[in-house]
Amino acid sequence: MVLEHLALPYEWQEISTIRGETRTPEFLARNPMGKVPVLEFGNGRYLGESGAIIQYLANGTPLWPTDRYEQAQVLKWMFFEQNIHEVAIAEARFIRRFLDPDHPRQSELPLKLEKGHKALAVMEQHLRDNAFFGTDRCSIADIALFAYTHVAGDGGFDMSPYPNIADWIARVLEQPGFTRMAP
Amino acid sequence: MVLEHLALPYEWQEISTIRGETRTPEFLARNPMGKVPVLEFGNGRYLGESGAIIQYLANGTPLWPTDRYEQAQVLKWMFFEQNIHEVAIAEARFIRRFLDPDHPRQSELPLKLEKGHKALAVMEQHLRDNAFFGTDRCSIADIALFAYTHVAGDGGFDMSPYPNIADWIARVLEQPGFTRMAP
Repeated sequence: MVLEHLALPYEWQEISTIRGETRTPEFLARNPMGKVPVLEFGNGRYLGESGAIIQYLANGTPLWPTDRYEQAQVLKWMFFEQNIHEVAIAEARFIRRFLDPDHPRQSELPLKLEKGHKALAVMEQHLRDNAFFGTDRCSIADIALFAYTHVAGDGGFDMSPYPNIADWIARVLEQPGFTRMAP
Repeated sequence: MVLEHLALPYEWQEISTIRGETRTPEFLARNPMGKVPVLEFGNGRYLGESGAIIQYLANGTPLWPTDRYEQAQVLKWMFFEQNIHEVAIAEARFIRRFLDPDHPRQSELPLKLEKGHKALAVMEQHLRDNAFFGTDRCSIADIALFAYTHVAGDGGFDMSPYPNIADWIARVLEQPGFTRMAP
């Protein structure tokens, strides 16, 4: 989404975590954390962690504010996304969508739904008085939160209690160049 | 640690999560996420999320690099800390140290130990070739990772397989003004 919004040239390389392609020696040399996404610069440099990648790409553009306090507010929501939101909502989606119905991790779903709804309630409340998350404009905080929020239904989340989130999703999709996350 | 290292004036206010002090209306007005820490600026502004707080405090100091690539590397380790490390290592410590021995969350410990050791192994490998995490100097990436790594033993982690981490903990403690995390 950031690359498309900023109209930066890039090549997308599909890596399957399900098929173990993030655990090969070649991949671990690029990202010892064994996770996608990884940004490959082409000069032997790599950068892992989605939040760090989008901050790198957005640095110097309107998606990353210049004001020190606004930068911290953007990071606040990005850390919230990684520490509270992703571990509940993205993982619930992963379990329901990609694991067998009798996989032992299915037992984690009730707790992830409970924690995920708490995160969504915090977002809903924030959007009662604000159009976007980190600042009054769309920033990488919105992109970070958009990714798994707009597909939260896949994780079993009933989104009907969150009309402000629905409006915000529509606002993010209106940004130039924005695309829905790859399925 | 950042406030002490930078010799900034501050007042520490103790808030007990165990006694529910992060769920009061007064506290939720300061941080709707219901979590400590929160930085109170004194002008009606507040900032939650430890990573955002230390980035705000470090901005403009040697703890936050000026180079765009180095900033992203610092953030990479800080997001790793929040998404992988904290949810395993800090939570294991919380369960063992603050919950009753028959609390249902005790059943989460084996998975948290497994995931935490994977995070520690990634750190140990990085420190084989590097003195610090985000850059070649101590940065807020090191402070973010230091906090729960240096007390990982409280969570039941055997740290003997990680000699590089032990050396790095000693290096961080040698930084001027650094103090151990509050118990």
